[in-house]
Amino acid sequence: LTPAMKVPSHRCRWATLPSPNAREAASMYGTAVAIFLVILVAALQGSAPAESPFPYRVPLDPEGTLELSWNVSYRQEVIHFQLLARALRAGLLFGMSDRGQLENADLVVLWTNGNSAYFADAWSDQKGKVHLDAQQDYQLLQAQRTPEGLSLLFKRPFATCDPKDYLIEDDTVHLVYGILEEPFQSLEAINTSGLQTGLQRVQLLKPELPIPNLPSDMPTMEIRVPNVLIPDNETTYWCYMKELQENFPSHHIVKYEAIITKGNEALVHHMEVFQCTDEVHSFPSYSGPCDSKMKPDRLNYCRHVLAAWALGAKPFYYPEEAGVPFGGPGSSRFLRLEVHYHNPRKMQGLRDSSGIRLYYTTRLRRFDAGIMELGLVYTPVMAIPPRERAFVLTGYCTDKCTQVALSPPGIHIFASQLHTHLTGRKVVTVLARDGREREIVNRDNHYSPHFQEIRMLRKTVFVKPGDVLITNCTYNTEERQQATVGGLGIQEEMCVNYVHYYPRTELELCKSAVDAGFLQKYFHMVDRFNDREVCTSPQASVPPQFASVPEQFASVPWNSFSSNVLAALYGYAPISMHCNKSSAVRFQGNWDLQPLPKVISTLEEPTPKCPTGQSPAGPTVVSITGGKS
Amino acid sequence: LTPAMKVPSHRCRWATLPSPNAREAASMYGTAVAIFLVILVAALQGSAPAESPFPYRVPLDPEGTLELSWNVSYRQEVIHFQLLARALRAGLLFGMSDRGQLENADLVVLWTNGNSAYFADAWSDQKGKVHLDAQQDYQLLQAQRTPEGLSLLFKRPFATCDPKDYLIEDDTVHLVYGILEEPFQSLEAINTSGLQTGLQRVQLLKPELPIPNLPSDMPTMEIRVPNVLIPDNETTYWCYMKELQENFPSHHIVKYEAIITKGNEALVHHMEVFQCTDEVHSFPSYSGPCDSKMKPDRLNYCRHVLAAWALGAKPFYYPEEAGVPFGGPGSSRFLRLEVHYHNPRKMQGLRDSSGIRLYYTTRLRRFDAGIMELGLVYTPVMAIPPRERAFVLTGYCTDKCTQVALSPPGIHIFASQLHTHLTGRKVVTVLARDGREREIVNRDNHYSPHFQEIRMLRKTVFVKPGDVLITNCTYNTEERQQATVGGLGIQEEMCVNYVHYYPRTELELCKSAVDAGFLQKYFHMVDRFNDREVCTSPQASVPPQFASVPEQFASVPWNSFSSNVLAALYGYAPISMHCNKSSAVRFQGNWDLQPLPKVISTLEEPTPKCPTGQSPAGPTVVSITGGKS
Repeated sequence: LTPAMKVPSHRCRWATLPSPNAREAASMYGTAVAIFLVILVAALQGSAPAESPFPYRVPLDPEGTLELSWNVSYRQEVIHFQLLARALRAGLLFGMSDRGQLENADLVVLWTNGNSAYFADAWSDQKGKVHLDAQQDYQLLQAQRTPEGLSLLFKRPFATCDPKDYLIEDDTVHLVYGILEEPFQSLEAINTSGLQTGLQRVQLLKPELPIPNLPSDMPTMEIRVPNVLIPDNETTYWCYMKELQENFPSHHIVKYEAIITKGNEALVHHMEVFQCTDEVHSFPSYSGPCDSKMKPDRLNYCRHVLAAWALGAKPFYYPEEAGVPFGGPGSSRFLRLEVHYHNPRKMQGLRDSSGIRLYYTTRLRRFDAGIMELGLVYTPVMAIPPRERAFVLTGYCTDKCTQVALSPPGIHIFASQLHTHLTGRKVVTVLARDGREREIVNRDNHYSPHFQEIRMLRKTVFVKPGDVLITNCTYNTEERQQATVGGLGIQEEMCVNYVHYYPRTELELCKSAVDAGFLQKYFHMVDRFNDREVCTSPQASVPPQFASVPEQFASVPWNSFSSNVLAALYGYAPISMHCNKSSAVRFQGNWDLQPLPKVISTLEEPTPKCPTGQSPAGPTVVSITGGKS
Repeated sequence: LTPAMKVPSHRCRWATLPSPNAREAASMYGTAVAIFLVILVAALQGSAPAESPFPYRVPLDPEGTLELSWNVSYRQEVIHFQLLARALRAGLLFGMSDRGQLENADLVVLWTNGNSAYFADAWSDQKGKVHLDAQQDYQLLQAQRTPEGLSLLFKRPFATCDPKDYLIEDDTVHLVYGILEEPFQSLEAINTSGLQTGLQRVQLLKPELPIPNLPSDMPTMEIRVPNVLIPDNETTYWCYMKELQENFPSHHIVKYEAIITKGNEALVHHMEVFQCTDEVHSFPSYSGPCDSKMKPDRLNYCRHVLAAWALGAKPFYYPEEAGVPFGGPGSSRFLRLEVHYHNPRKMQGLRDSSGIRLYYTTRLRRFDAGIMELGLVYTPVMAIPPRERAFVLTGYCTDKCTQVALSPPGIHIFASQLHTHLTGRKVVTVLARDGREREIVNRDNHYSPHFQEIRMLRKTVFVKPGDVLITNCTYNTEERQQATVGGLGIQEEMCVNYVHYYPRTELELCKSAVDAGFLQKYFHMVDRFNDREVCTSPQASVPPQFASVPEQFASVPWNSFSSNVLAALYGYAPISMHCNKSSAVRFQGNWDLQPLPKVISTLEEPTPKCPTGQSPAGPTVVSITGGKS
């Protein structure tokens, strides 16, 4: 008698669902939940699972009753999922969707009709109705009772070529779930709109990089919030200031990892450690919400990212050749820890001491690692019209800037953190050489401003002097009635890729913005098109600079013409470059009225490999007797 | 002993190809062609095939040595192809591609390595190199020797969901072929660039409509060219004038079909019968090239399409309720037949008497059928910038026009002929009601100006007063250096859908163009953006109307900005409507400065159904012994 209920593929029966008549259905209904649970208990009793072969794990719901573990085989292009359901009623939905909605989602469904339990690959339409997939690409491998709950093991290829399936790529994936509280006579009877549902963002396809050699001496430093009471608000950003001892000598950070207080795994959403500027010599201590009026203003000078962790991320290792300078002269002794608590159920009385553990060494590595900002300058001249579904802004790091600022042979980018504010939906940076796109530095087609992590690149990107780095950000402003201008405010927008690289250079910013004079031509054109400024009138000679750019954008009559002409302007007008050593010091050269880099060939989208071979046509009966022998 | 070599799917061996070493390959090479032919002769000798179950047939090459027949199962969403190769050397390629190129094509390949013959589903990359498809969706059913040549029977689903496969829809399909003159050791050794290749355009998915009841009296009239000598030019349009007897009474045309002179099946590309205007009472007779200087100018008044046939088209039946008025008072007695000869091998001395046979009746049907023009007015204000890959122009038939011109309940559109000039690449007409797109009237995503046929719609489209009909045309002007303006000339462009409908109404034209005043704003804007017109200078008040619109377009400095702003203008500016009874008489009302119809919801692309179940992983060995029993 094997304790686990194994469902190897050759034993599965690809059955069509029994369709009981209405009366049978009604009589079944009352006891269905109980039967389902009894079946599971009877069939799946067993011992604790062996040590988990799943390196990645996230809770799906805020209480952590659903927990997902997974591993990735890049060779087979398959993910194995282990879904642990701690208190299952009558089944569940799990899957992926474009932005975390339960409509138009790619799903697996475990459900019961009262008699049998079924597992199927399904999808939901735009109204949330669930349908069976023509091609069954999620394959159930095992259903096992553990002391913690029901554990389902199933696998899915990255790409299935089923048009109803989500294409799993190495960017953010919005995992979705739904809880079935009662039996359903058929899969098609399920609608996601009536269920308790939720989403969790993760990077499923984490790069499999070997752990680099670590130095023999490796002290650690824990930067943790001091036993704080988690506020009963959905969203809290907690700020905590940490001061290093005086005369803390030069080190290299070589690794860091998250420390999560036990029990709070589903609440701690992400954490970042920022270093303060060394131009300010002293910072006050603080532990409290980041948006509190009590927070000292000076903390705004602590913005240089040292470490960042988000749900599901593993320890972060710097490449063997490089480390992040830390301590010593010219390095601030002050650090700011920011912890994002996500508490949608507004649970009270929970205490937390989570934070980040830095591993550093005095045996300095060969290279200092640095961080460079690519994308757009924080300026209102780059704006997004309102009511746009997918408006793209582009920031350039030009060949001229990399030529001046990088020394041969060049730099290695090994990690990247994409950044926008609230309307950002996609971000991508592409490297172009000699006018041809060569390589994607980092891309997230499902980017969320609520899920910003430093991601190791699967392959280090080598940037030579003369290369161009083009960063595209896509925004959704459908909910906004006014233009969204670039800037520092949370209601303004950014388009940034913080790339982590070595050897460190003086180049800190390589960003662009449209030339301000050409933007004035745009405002003139729109005014004139709308007959608000008659060409022969004396007002025409009044310089429009008397209004600020945000004011000018606010007075544009937004319609498809003014929006599309703005997009046309951004795609044509010359740019002003910030090719800067530090935020204010430019490299020598003329950086205004620069031509847009010319790209004569773009990268082709790779064709997804579709799995060949048999695919069952219907749901798998989770056969109870299948587990006994 | 069965004469045919049958390869039912369960008998096929899905083998990987043998990979002989280089020396073996060399020794094989010399005799490979001979062996291959011997094998085929030995294996496939047999009797003539039974009567063809394939209703559609086209020659692929100008000599007609490759001939394709096919049938369509809409229930199974599968096409069965029968490919007849009259003089096969060492194999062939057949398939489909976006616009008839041999690169990026979806292919089946029949080839030999000298020992065995293979059949495989393959694709060619952008350099023409052939690769095996991961998923084998073309399935060989039979290879049979007939007195005419080798006949291959294979099938393919409309949609395969293999990203390397062509999606077969009900629009124009560019069939491609290539001839293998020698053996290849592997599929991957084949490159299409070295082969004799060609293309043929067809509509593969012809609608399966029941043949309507025909009247008991049904005289026919043959309109045929009088035994002409086909010119030895690649392209000839032959014009022939036909005069009906005087006092030819009122009839309804209820059917027509092509008459192709035997032997010329591969040369006669398409034919059209035009009726002349009844405003001109007499036309000279003529039989000669349509572009000849000898052609009387008056023939240009014969433009009203009565019948159109193109390669692969079957007899055309009018719906049972309707017929095309023909003869009687108010109907010209003069017809012009136009035959397009496609003679790329410039063969000499061939004679032809092809034409069209009209079936008509004196028992007039309930409704007259009519033709209405949708799309864009023939005017230079609608222009396409140069160097554009896919520039879209849109023509509207507004709710106001259908409200005024159609009487309740409305009209039934049963056929459609799309029309552009040389740069047209796609055409689609969509019906919108209450601001929502409801139905596609006709769509061709692979439209070619060289393949214009009247297509029966699979489902009649009902148009009510107040409906909107939106026609989009997509143009490719990558080869042009100047703007392409709208107009009658072949170097100018059109965007038209001739819809065939009943009951006939007075509405002949329902077309639009951008308001001319707004276009002048565009020219001003572009001039000003380029600092060619300074706002405060006196020239600003010189009206630009002194230059013609084509001249103004010719002086635009084309770049991404001026092109995109033109597109933005067309997508925003008000339109001028031609809501006309005949080409000059408008319906009463104000048709200028009309707002663009608002569309708040668009049709969703249907998800292709992917076939489930087994798909072999490799090529099929065309097993010789498989045919013997």
